[in-house]
Amino acid sequence: MGGNDQQAYDRGTSLFSPDGRIYQVEYAREAVSRGAPSVGVRTADGVVFVAMSRPSSTLMEAESIEKLHKLDDHLGTASAGHVADARQLIDLARRQSQGNRLRYGEPVGVETLTKFVTDHIQENTQRGGTRPYGAALLIGGIDEGEPRLFAADPSGTPNEWKATVIGGGRSDIQGHLESEWTDDLSLTDGIELGIAALAAHENGFEPDDLAVATITEADGYRTVPAEEVAEAFAAAGLVEEEDEGDADDADDAGGNADDDTDTDDTADAGDNADDE
Amino acid sequence: MGGNDQQAYDRGTSLFSPDGRIYQVEYAREAVSRGAPSVGVRTADGVVFVAMSRPSSTLMEAESIEKLHKLDDHLGTASAGHVADARQLIDLARRQSQGNRLRYGEPVGVETLTKFVTDHIQENTQRGGTRPYGAALLIGGIDEGEPRLFAADPSGTPNEWKATVIGGGRSDIQGHLESEWTDDLSLTDGIELGIAALAAHENGFEPDDLAVATITEADGYRTVPAEEVAEAFAAAGLVEEEDEGDADDADDAGGNADDDTDTDDTADAGDNADDE
Amino acid sequence: MGGNDQQAYDRGTSLFSPDGRIYQVEYAREAVSRGAPSVGVRTADGVVFVAMSRPSSTLMEAESIEKLHKLDDHLGTASAGHVADARQLIDLARRQSQGNRLRYGEPVGVETLTKFVTDHIQENTQRGGTRPYGAALLIGGIDEGEPRLFAADPSGTPNEWKATVIGGGRSDIQGHLESEWTDDLSLTDGIELGIAALAAHENGFEPDDLAVATITEADGYRTVPAEEVAEAFAAAGLVEEEDEGDADDADDAGGNADDDTDTDDTADAGDNADDE
Amino acid sequence: MGGNDQQAYDRGTSLFSPDGRIYQVEYAREAVSRGAPSVGVRTADGVVFVAMSRPSSTLMEAESIEKLHKLDDHLGTASAGHVADARQLIDLARRQSQGNRLRYGEPVGVETLTKFVTDHIQENTQRGGTRPYGAALLIGGIDEGEPRLFAADPSGTPNEWKATVIGGGRSDIQGHLESEWTDDLSLTDGIELGIAALAAHENGFEPDDLAVATITEADGYRTVPAEEVAEAFAAAGLVEEEDEGDADDADDAGGNADDDTDTDDTADAGDNADDE
Amino acid sequence: MGGNDQQAYDRGTSLFSPDGRIYQVEYAREAVSRGAPSVGVRTADGVVFVAMSRPSSTLMEAESIEKLHKLDDHLGTASAGHVADARQLIDLARRQSQGNRLRYGEPVGVETLTKFVTDHIQENTQRGGTRPYGAALLIGGIDEGEPRLFAADPSGTPNEWKATVIGGGRSDIQGHLESEWTDDLSLTDGIELGIAALAAHENGFEPDDLAVATITEADGYRTVPAEEVAEAFAAAGLVEEEDEGDADDADDAGGNADDDTDTDDTADAGDNADDE
Amino acid sequence: MGGNDQQAYDRGTSLFSPDGRIYQVEYAREAVSRGAPSVGVRTADGVVFVAMSRPSSTLMEAESIEKLHKLDDHLGTASAGHVADARQLIDLARRQSQGNRLRYGEPVGVETLTKFVTDHIQENTQRGGTRPYGAALLIGGIDEGEPRLFAADPSGTPNEWKATVIGGGRSDIQGHLESEWTDDLSLTDGIELGIAALAAHENGFEPDDLAVATITEADGYRTVPAEEVAEAFAAAGLVEEEDEGDADDADDAGGNADDDTDTDDTADAGDNADDE
Amino acid sequence: MGGNDQQAYDRGTSLFSPDGRIYQVEYAREAVSRGAPSVGVRTADGVVFVAMSRPSSTLMEAESIEKLHKLDDHLGTASAGHVADARQLIDLARRQSQGNRLRYGEPVGVETLTKFVTDHIQENTQRGGTRPYGAALLIGGIDEGEPRLFAADPSGTPNEWKATVIGGGRSDIQGHLESEWTDDLSLTDGIELGIAALAAHENGFEPDDLAVATITEADGYRTVPAEEVAEAFAAAGLVEEEDEGDADDADDAGGNADDDTDTDDTADAGDNADDE
Repeated sequence: MGGNDQQAYDRGTSLFSPDGRIYQVEYAREAVSRGAPSVGVRTADGVVFVAMSRPSSTLMEAESIEKLHKLDDHLGTASAGHVADARQLIDLARRQSQGNRLRYGEPVGVETLTKFVTDHIQENTQRGGTRPYGAALLIGGIDEGEPRLFAADPSGTPNEWKATVIGGGRSDIQGHLESEWTDDLSLTDGIELGIAALAAHENGFEPDDLAVATITEADGYRTVPAEEVAEAFAAAGLVEEEDEGDADDADDAGGNADDDTDTDDTADAGDNADDE
Repeated sequence: MGGNDQQAYDRGTSLFSPDGRIYQVEYAREAVSRGAPSVGVRTADGVVFVAMSRPSSTLMEAESIEKLHKLDDHLGTASAGHVADARQLIDLARRQSQGNRLRYGEPVGVETLTKFVTDHIQENTQRGGTRPYGAALLIGGIDEGEPRLFAADPSGTPNEWKATVIGGGRSDIQGHLESEWTDDLSLTDGIELGIAALAAHENGFEPDDLAVATITEADGYRTVPAEEVAEAFAAAGLVEEEDEGDADDADDAGGNADDDTDTDDTADAGDNADDE
Repeated sequence: MGGNDQQAYDRGTSLFSPDGRIYQVEYAREAVSRGAPSVGVRTADGVVFVAMSRPSSTLMEAESIEKLHKLDDHLGTASAGHVADARQLIDLARRQSQGNRLRYGEPVGVETLTKFVTDHIQENTQRGGTRPYGAALLIGGIDEGEPRLFAADPSGTPNEWKATVIGGGRSDIQGHLESEWTDDLSLTDGIELGIAALAAHENGFEPDDLAVATITEADGYRTVPAEEVAEAFAAAGLVEEEDEGDADDADDAGGNADDDTDTDDTADAGDNADDE
Repeated sequence: MGGNDQQAYDRGTSLFSPDGRIYQVEYAREAVSRGAPSVGVRTADGVVFVAMSRPSSTLMEAESIEKLHKLDDHLGTASAGHVADARQLIDLARRQSQGNRLRYGEPVGVETLTKFVTDHIQENTQRGGTRPYGAALLIGGIDEGEPRLFAADPSGTPNEWKATVIGGGRSDIQGHLESEWTDDLSLTDGIELGIAALAAHENGFEPDDLAVATITEADGYRTVPAEEVAEAFAAAGLVEEEDEGDADDADDAGGNADDDTDTDDTADAGDNADDE
Repeated sequence: MGGNDQQAYDRGTSLFSPDGRIYQVEYAREAVSRGAPSVGVRTADGVVFVAMSRPSSTLMEAESIEKLHKLDDHLGTASAGHVADARQLIDLARRQSQGNRLRYGEPVGVETLTKFVTDHIQENTQRGGTRPYGAALLIGGIDEGEPRLFAADPSGTPNEWKATVIGGGRSDIQGHLESEWTDDLSLTDGIELGIAALAAHENGFEPDDLAVATITEADGYRTVPAEEVAEAFAAAGLVEEEDEGDADDADDAGGNADDDTDTDDTADAGDNADDE
Repeated sequence: MGGNDQQAYDRGTSLFSPDGRIYQVEYAREAVSRGAPSVGVRTADGVVFVAMSRPSSTLMEAESIEKLHKLDDHLGTASAGHVADARQLIDLARRQSQGNRLRYGEPVGVETLTKFVTDHIQENTQRGGTRPYGAALLIGGIDEGEPRLFAADPSGTPNEWKATVIGGGRSDIQGHLESEWTDDLSLTDGIELGIAALAAHENGFEPDDLAVATITEADGYRTVPAEEVAEAFAAAGLVEEEDEGDADDADDAGGNADDDTDTDDTADAGDNADDE
Repeated sequence: MGGNDQQAYDRGTSLFSPDGRIYQVEYAREAVSRGAPSVGVRTADGVVFVAMSRPSSTLMEAESIEKLHKLDDHLGTASAGHVADARQLIDLARRQSQGNRLRYGEPVGVETLTKFVTDHIQENTQRGGTRPYGAALLIGGIDEGEPRLFAADPSGTPNEWKATVIGGGRSDIQGHLESEWTDDLSLTDGIELGIAALAAHENGFEPDDLAVATITEADGYRTVPAEEVAEAFAAAGLVEEEDEGDADDADDAGGNADDDTDTDDTADAGDNADDE
């Protein structure tokens, strides 16, 4: 469907195109792919989140970018896309988690929570007078001792994953995960895999540009400290950049960030840092 | 009615075209036909659901695609089309089933439940400010000992069937069902018929790509385990693919998947997996 | 008024055209005429409904097409047009009938019920944000011993009839009724007249393609069983088809189904069976 | 104001044109003039209503067309235009009449009731999201012994009349009334005048095509039986038609129905009988 | 601002044009100027209303045109423009007058009432989804012994006047008032001035075409009877017309009705008598 | 931004243009500048308001134009622009002042009241379905012994001023105030400055065309009587006009009313006096 | 995306463009960049706000421009952009601060308050019928002894900063901050840095054109008096202008205000001072 025809159907969430598509949802997916990527890896020991979290200015506090969020003791989320939209979904998830604990005295299940969030997302894709959420979430946690990892996209579709990525560079990063993920990864392996997968799309980032968290039965939700991130960064075979442009990621055999059409240039966009 | 004229009437659910059609409902049907097919077969012993359920990535948990859902002890549903939309309808059906049990101490009838769902679907085709549901459901169960199978489409029309299909490849698959269905099928026959019918539209799928469930008086709603699916797959005369392209379905005499205009390529669409 | 001018005024129920027409209501009538016809005949003994009810697939349960509906002991309705829309009106009529019985301990009058339904239909033709109902109803019953037959169209106009038809092929069928109806018909005569009238528009249908019901003082609402329908079919001088195309209806002197511009081809439309 | 300019301002009730007109109200008046005419005549003895009420089919019950309605013992109404719209206004008037009797133990005044109805009509000409009523009413009755006759048009303007007409053929019929009405008419004279006035616009109708009612102090609202109508028809100098086209109305000297631009062809429009 | 540019801003009350105008309000003023004029004159003894009130048919009751209305013992109003709109404002004013009396046991002030009405009018010029009122009012009365006269226009602006006119022919009539009004007019002088002012715009009307009322401390609101109107008509130097076209108003030296662009032809518009 | 581009963004309050402007607010400012000017001057002794208030007809009561309003004992307001809009804001301010007195037993602060009003104004610039207020206010009073003067514009921005003007001729008048205002003005000086400032934009007005009020600790809100205005008029060096066009304001050295593009011709616009 | 394509998607907050952008939010950012800049600097001792606050007239009270606001004892905010919009957000923040104190007896956290405000901002970017806020805020305070500084932009994204700027001239000013900020700045250093940063974008302002405030543990929110501002102005190496155009800022090596495309000319826009 060409430009003019497409434009006839892409101005509202309450409209199907003749070929059965909802363009506003597809544009919201585009908003997600404009953001920096967040990787989730399910390992035997727990769930790992690795997010690209690079400030647009040296004066911005990196942690305020907030790609990773604890939702409950054993429950966390990683976001990509429109930051303010993601915050609304995360608030919703957090309130639901807390409410479940208050009402039933136990944590909400990972799958239950994911579907609560995606049902809310779907409503914004069907009723007029609103737009879809321009954000995607990974929701991970420990359910009765088992690590679980789900993704929620702007259409409101929930899916469970062994390892996946949301945000820019999806095809490179998911390809790396598919070729390298095994079901016997340790938690540390998972962190390294997450970092290496991000490098499959884009090189030239530093350990400081990453936010990493893990969720395990033993330790619950845990923000991985900078030194551990740096160790994993090195263990993943990456080297910190001295100057720009000369440090290619050794793992990044097939992926070529230069010709990637995904837009992941948030860090350079000083004024428009709402998509992270 | 040509392109320009059609565009004059296809922007809202609250609009008839001069020839009495509601285009948004027809486009929602198109959204359903973009999804992978789900077959329902009524047999003497119970109702069989066979759904194509092929993940878009090897790392996606196949069961999280969720084409088949238990609604009550003897009541289940199969969906096709926009996943998030289908989830809303399934939640509605489930709440109504549970409510009926709470209020009356007995399960809701299959026909009653179907019409409750289709009346809700219809409302979204008449009022402005919303779009129709881009999903179809098969609802099956045991009513006073009798297997019943209904379909609900995006217009909100309920119909009872001996065997039918929703989703992509409808004409090939329904044609196979019409030529092969008999009223003395055993439950196992029904599973094999469902699988063979799917193969009438598309070859090259594996047992693992299928989700199968049965509903019988004796066992209620039952998810058919992988080994039984594989047995039925073989019994249906299908062989698992070694490499792509060479394994044609022996049953697929008349159907030709290649020239089928229905779009059933979801499994290849990594980023747009909301229509399953 | 030509095409472009008409398009200026046909996009909403809350709009008159310069010549005082409400196009959306006229398009809703077109939706009705796309459906299979339903005939109502008032006889000395009661009201007869004969509806064309031909499944789009051999695997569809014919009775699930549901053209005829019991509303109360001595009250029934026949529908034509958009199935899901008709269901909403029938539900409304049924709830009103039941409510009347609960409140007053007696059945609602046929005329009272018809006007309750048409007043509701009218509201959808005046307020914006909705479309008219794309369905028409015949409502028949016994009022203080007298058979009464009413029709409700998409404008919300109620009229009482001796015999009439809603749905496709209206001019042929109504013409046959006008030339053959007399006020001394027996109930059996009425069934035969209804069948013959349908044949005035279209030949090539079987007794199984018909749904017939009667409402009499003695027996209330009664679904006429298949064998009686077949008898009346034969008594109406029709013969069941051996092969397509050669069996012309002997009664169909003036009517010529071939050049009829009404669209009554629902039975062939596998995917779009919402207009029945 | 030409075609294109007019179209800029005629799409909503909440819009004035630059010359201060509300086109949707004028189009609603056009809807009224598409309907068959209803005449009201105030005589010394009471109010007379004569309405053209010709069924579109010999099988339609003429009285179900319902142009004349009793509202209370000494209060009635005649309608013209869109039937379903008129029914809403008549229901409103009837509820108000009954409510007045319940609250105050006495009938509502003719003028009071008319203004209650016209105020409701006006609201639909000022607020968006709705269309005006495509119907006009005559409201007549006995107020403290005096016959009163009012008209309510689609703008919501109430006016009191000695004699007037609503619906098609207004200029011919009103002209006849203006030249023939005197203030000493008997009730029978009034009926004959009403019939003759209708004939001033259109010949070729039969007594059966008329609905006549009177409202007097003595008898209240009274439907005039067919034999009395036939007598008045003859007394008005009209003869029943033997065959079409040859019977001209002797009274119809100046009026010429052939070049009248009002559209009063409802009786011939089998499928679109909503404007009566 | 030319035609096309103006059209960009004249479709809603919630829209300013680039030069700060609200076109819908100006079009509503045009609706007022399409109506017959109503004059108000403040005299030493009280307020005088003189309204052109000419029926569109000899069979219409002139008093039902209702240009003048009593609101309370010493409070009245004269209207011009869209009749049904004016009625809504007059009802509002009457309810407010009555409510004030009920709550406080005294009549509402003329200025207070006027501003209550104009505040309501203003709201319809600012919010979308409605149109302004196409009517203007004169509100007059006795406030603590003093005659007061106010005008309310479609913008909702209240102003106090010694003498003014609303409706068609405003410039001629206001000019006559400005040149002839003095502060020592008697009530009878005021009536004659009002009649003469109307004649400054249009000749050829009869005393019967006028509605006149006065509000004085002594007599409160009083409808001036026909004979008194005829006397004032003669005293104003006007002669009743024998035949059309030859009787020019002697007082109408400067005014020339023929080249007046105001449209005041309501009396000739048989079918569109809603602007009076 | 040129004409066509501007038009794309100027149709609603809920819309930014690409350069970050809200055109409807700017057009509302234009509505203010179409009105006659009102000047506010803060002096050591109190606040002075001088408003141009020239009736459009000799028969209009000048004081009913109402440019100046007392809000509380020591609180007043001057308005410019769309009269009916200004009245709504003034009513709001008055109700808030009275409410404050009732609740707290003391007058509301000048700044507090101004911000209450501007917050209300802002809401009408952000939500759809309404237009901004086409009026500006000066709000002045005595706060704990200190004179304060604020202005509220159609964007809802509050600012405090030593002396300022709202309405037409702003640049000339504000320029005069800036060159002549000193912080040691007496109240009488303030009145003369206000009059002279108005004359900097437009000559040819009379003392009767002015409304003047002062607010001081000693006397509270006080309407300055005509004779005092005339004295100040003379003291300001202005002479009353004998005939039009020859009396230039001696103080008006730099300002040239003739080439001023502000439109302040309200006094000549007989029919459209809603902008004052 | 070019002009025409962009225009297709920039008319509502409830619309994504095909490349996943929300143009109305980007235009709201443009509204912010039209305003005068406000700088925030976190120092070891507390948070510093320096805002350009230059009145558009010598008669406007500079402090009424109100760029800096105390929210609580140790909490303040600086705004840029549309003044009336900013006021709404500041009111919201103030009410939330006060409410927190009332409910919990302690001040709200800086981060908590910022996110409360940004969540509100986000809602106006997703629902139709409103526009985004055309304002940005810096929110600073002392949290458990630690200075914190956050920024909230029109998308509703919160970020924490060491030092940043909102409003016009962002790239020059942020660049200066990035090159000069160190973590050992004293409060006085911070004021000087803020002033010098503003000078990096624009020269030719005076100490009087600045509003400065500090928030420290010891003194809470404190408005810095004019003499201290003048000292810091001098200490920053700036000299007060004698005449326009010749005084270049010695610190402003790289920045060149002349070719800066940001629009910061508010001080010259006499009539449109709503963006400050």
